[in-house]
Amino acid sequence: MTTLLPSRVTIHEVVLRDGIQNEAKLVPLDVKLALAQRLIESGIKRIEVSSFVNPRLVPQMADAEELWRRIPREADVIFSALVLGKKSLWRAIRCGVPHVGIFVSASETHSRKNSNRSVAEAVVEALHLIEMAKSHDMKVRAGVMNAFGCAYEGAVPLEKIARLMGRFMMMDPDEVCLADTSGMANPLQMQKVVQAVRPTVKSTPLSLHLHNTRGLGLANLWEALRQGVTIFDTSMGGLGGCPFIPGAKGNIATEDTVHLLHEVGIETGIDLARLIGASRTFENFMGKEFPVMISRLQCGTEFEP
Amino acid sequence: MTTLLPSRVTIHEVVLRDGIQNEAKLVPLDVKLALAQRLIESGIKRIEVSSFVNPRLVPQMADAEELWRRIPREADVIFSALVLGKKSLWRAIRCGVPHVGIFVSASETHSRKNSNRSVAEAVVEALHLIEMAKSHDMKVRAGVMNAFGCAYEGAVPLEKIARLMGRFMMMDPDEVCLADTSGMANPLQMQKVVQAVRPTVKSTPLSLHLHNTRGLGLANLWEALRQGVTIFDTSMGGLGGCPFIPGAKGNIATEDTVHLLHEVGIETGIDLARLIGASRTFENFMGKEFPVMISRLQCGTEFEP
Repeated sequence: MTTLLPSRVTIHEVVLRDGIQNEAKLVPLDVKLALAQRLIESGIKRIEVSSFVNPRLVPQMADAEELWRRIPREADVIFSALVLGKKSLWRAIRCGVPHVGIFVSASETHSRKNSNRSVAEAVVEALHLIEMAKSHDMKVRAGVMNAFGCAYEGAVPLEKIARLMGRFMMMDPDEVCLADTSGMANPLQMQKVVQAVRPTVKSTPLSLHLHNTRGLGLANLWEALRQGVTIFDTSMGGLGGCPFIPGAKGNIATEDTVHLLHEVGIETGIDLARLIGASRTFENFMGKEFPVMISRLQCGTEFEP
Repeated sequence: MTTLLPSRVTIHEVVLRDGIQNEAKLVPLDVKLALAQRLIESGIKRIEVSSFVNPRLVPQMADAEELWRRIPREADVIFSALVLGKKSLWRAIRCGVPHVGIFVSASETHSRKNSNRSVAEAVVEALHLIEMAKSHDMKVRAGVMNAFGCAYEGAVPLEKIARLMGRFMMMDPDEVCLADTSGMANPLQMQKVVQAVRPTVKSTPLSLHLHNTRGLGLANLWEALRQGVTIFDTSMGGLGGCPFIPGAKGNIATEDTVHLLHEVGIETGIDLARLIGASRTFENFMGKEFPVMISRLQCGTEFEP
């Protein structure tokens, strides 16, 4: 009578992009390379290496070209980048990026703030980018930001998400993604949104990009597993939060996610102990305590219930 | 096609007991009383006031008698205490405590360390305590510690939990409780354990005492809601962790739990804003940042997915 869960899940490690993009401390190229190496040695098979964004807006991503030139291209690891427009995609093409993420926002306000375009305009642009990427033999993940609510506009109708997915499907992307950009998802909504897009995306792989802003990241992930989702963006140490709030948390932590998956019998191919070791090294470099739970653990039992 | 959830959940606030019992900073009686008042004003209808334990072992609980004498006994609020043995129960009886929690451990090693008794001996003692409490017109919650695993012994067989519950049921307790004492539960296990004890406990209310030690507290709670559980122990600010690990987290946080419940449409009767206000006041008093998420939130949307 227990739930049928996926037997295997793919972790898409985003620490090198979403994890550090808002960190004030610049991560030098050699540290990024060493971190990528440690991720690979831990068994991570999919790594988001960078975005291609204006270096004045996101200084942490300024070395994207150099990073792509020097990153160890293991044959069985997928390296990906986030692209934000035509110029951004051209940079990715010149770097030989094999896998790109292309996103639109489900929220008008966020879309205008983020890209200076309406949602409708952003979709047209995204479809064009997907076509262009595919014509350069790139694999494409097409995603919807704010799929679970928007900090500016609040709730996002289910039909809107399904409709955006429908537009993407016209271009036959290799994968689609739902992003909980501001960490507003709850597990009941997770159930509803995944069920609402399934008839549209059919057998196209569906991935989730979850944030732990309100502490619901792993509850949402658990419900998503119950709904059969098998690809998740996670960030080492739970990095990726808003830098302006003390205690604010970011993406769901890779370590905590892998721990949960292994505990419920789902394979990831990841060596958790090695991953925690890599995370501690990076934590020392960053000089701050990462918002991750499982790595802190050395406690015995407590005295009372 | 979405899951049928409970329409209402009862929060049993344990900050005054589990939350602070391991805190080095002693909370004076007047602060405890003010905190209880703020909890009541926030709409909390069930409060664990203290345990009755040797004050040399747990100095924070040394003022239990005085606290029980002075706590405002609102008619529609249930005040409870944890009792640990015969002497402890007598203290509760003399204080006129209306509702007691009586627990045994599912783990031999933990049972011997915690109470210097085997599990079998502890059960006999517990049944005797339940009888004694009921004969003094107390309501009784009978619980199993380490129901989801033991830091010393690892996994605990499902049959053992069901058997312990069966022993309790002989005494007809008013409620039974499963405690994840060392925070080892995972959501799949939650599903299995709740389903395993249901045939034994039948319509007796079942409550859960969850810890967030490994970051799975709210994922476990979500699965428990799906399994129809409607009573949860939570602690303001997520207090209650092991004091010897930096970053270790304790009980699931009342604020984050209430936020989750309200987001998925479950009533609690609690005013979350007032509760967060009360928590901030207590956080200032304790002089440390509480491991709670929702209260930290003032972030706008982020730049990218």
